[in-house]
Amino acid sequence: MEEDQASADPVAAILAVLRKGERFLVCSHSRPDGDAVGSMLAMGMLLEQLGKRADLVTADRVPTIYRGLPGAESIRHALRVHGPYDAVILLECDGVERAQLRGLERFYLVNIDHHLTGRAYGQLNWIDHGAVSVGELVHRLAKAADATVTAEMATCLYTTLLTDTGGFTYGSVKESTFEVARELVLAGADPVGIARDVFYSATTSKVMLLGAALNNLKREGRLAWLWITHQDMVRTCAVEEDCEGIVNLGVGIAGVEVAVFLRELPEKHIRVSLRSKGKVNVAVIAERLGGGGHGNAAGCTLEGPLGHALEEILGELRLAVAVAFPVVV
Amino acid sequence: MEEDQASADPVAAILAVLRKGERFLVCSHSRPDGDAVGSMLAMGMLLEQLGKRADLVTADRVPTIYRGLPGAESIRHALRVHGPYDAVILLECDGVERAQLRGLERFYLVNIDHHLTGRAYGQLNWIDHGAVSVGELVHRLAKAADATVTAEMATCLYTTLLTDTGGFTYGSVKESTFEVARELVLAGADPVGIARDVFYSATTSKVMLLGAALNNLKREGRLAWLWITHQDMVRTCAVEEDCEGIVNLGVGIAGVEVAVFLRELPEKHIRVSLRSKGKVNVAVIAERLGGGGHGNAAGCTLEGPLGHALEEILGELRLAVAVAFPVVV
Repeated sequence: MEEDQASADPVAAILAVLRKGERFLVCSHSRPDGDAVGSMLAMGMLLEQLGKRADLVTADRVPTIYRGLPGAESIRHALRVHGPYDAVILLECDGVERAQLRGLERFYLVNIDHHLTGRAYGQLNWIDHGAVSVGELVHRLAKAADATVTAEMATCLYTTLLTDTGGFTYGSVKESTFEVARELVLAGADPVGIARDVFYSATTSKVMLLGAALNNLKREGRLAWLWITHQDMVRTCAVEEDCEGIVNLGVGIAGVEVAVFLRELPEKHIRVSLRSKGKVNVAVIAERLGGGGHGNAAGCTLEGPLGHALEEILGELRLAVAVAFPVVV
Repeated sequence: MEEDQASADPVAAILAVLRKGERFLVCSHSRPDGDAVGSMLAMGMLLEQLGKRADLVTADRVPTIYRGLPGAESIRHALRVHGPYDAVILLECDGVERAQLRGLERFYLVNIDHHLTGRAYGQLNWIDHGAVSVGELVHRLAKAADATVTAEMATCLYTTLLTDTGGFTYGSVKESTFEVARELVLAGADPVGIARDVFYSATTSKVMLLGAALNNLKREGRLAWLWITHQDMVRTCAVEEDCEGIVNLGVGIAGVEVAVFLRELPEKHIRVSLRSKGKVNVAVIAERLGGGGHGNAAGCTLEGPLGHALEEILGELRLAVAVAFPVVV
């Protein structure tokens, strides 16, 4: 019966769980991005306003560019979770395994997600593909709870909007996105300051890494690909988060419909990031290869070596592009 | 007396001129950007709705990424203007000379601008630093005229918002910016489609040029600079518009407050683009060197050779940064 209520009104169902419980765990996916960090922090603030205790945990550390967000220091880095918790709130995880946290299965799971590949693994599930970020859903939850959207909360939520849309340029940006952005700015988010911190705060390593990736840029019709080796990472003193966004340079070329960025991991696995301009659903391809994501931004991890992984993903992409753009005879 | 009315209510004063006249020239600065092209086109559409004739002219051709904008083919490329016109509407020109059009001085000039370095050279002047783009001002004018903001007009106006703020990340982005964006999307602008056309439509040459510029990236405390030679342009088959945005890679480094991008022109002059994170007003520096712009994005042209121009601009910038960031003893 709870499931029925949830599908009818997931916001009310989730609020009921939050109001009933006392102690919550809030987590998101490993290698947290702006939406993961921002929505976790805002959810923690909402729970605090409701008079609850909340632990914030991720499997990987918060990237440097998000460490200035209000409350970021309260996010703990762990690989296993211990109770007692009345519920675990998973944000932006299309599967429970994305959190990379052991011990989650023992708890009552509330799943709030916006991925196209989102699955209903929780006891309560709210998956809305129309939201540009999970932060947008947390904002809706806060308003439904009559909570005060403080300047701190607005800053975290605006960050999720900005980063998951690449500056309002992709994803399901629509009229309501700008209404939410406007409300958050009115509540105290500083749009230019936040953008400066997250978009204009690259490390020198990151910019050098970009140069290395551009040396390895290839184009074939509607496909573009670029890669960096583990050696490139070592030479430029780059860290994982410096790779964020490199794939956008490929998809940013006119006529390119899908771009892929490959990164050689130290243990020879290959991390693959996919971006599409919209006609090819890259989430389906990523999912088929054990990953997931959105229709226009997805990822997966393949077996190395680099050349082998490149051929594997290019095989899938060539087929997908051929299907999406049939040759007119 | 007209001047007094204009300063009291520039919108009403401009509308009176538009309603009284029959034939207008609409122009903007040379090397037109998204705001120049988008605001010209929207102004042309507004005049058409008012039942007037409008010629749209720029000294340089419309860059490829803006050629898909509704009506872009109606913009004529010329170096001299001929009448008769009841008035010339100059958009986004901080001085009349920015248009690089001979013969303008004979006409009644309406100056609509948002540059920090904007001067009141017109018979009628509306300079609003608070607007993120001149397109925002044209939108205000259209609403005041009770004109219909068509999907075509909204597309042109949204383009000005998007490009002059780099995806809502710099400039005077505030709550009202998102309200305008929302209105334009409601009127029919497609935010993701427009961003795809202008941000994700680089030529392969542009991406190669980026790589070349990154090879020449230098950092010195709060300053970063990068350059490309005329030889780099030739080798990558790049055109002028491919240089747009390269300076952002410099200012995008954490700790960098001001970045400068230098481009060697064929005739040995050096084109200089400046970007600031906000504490250093680069418009003042550009103006002193014969250029102009905004507080955080400005430009000028210097005498070559490249090394000489670099030393000249670095001298100015080192001083400006030292003044803006005094050493605390």
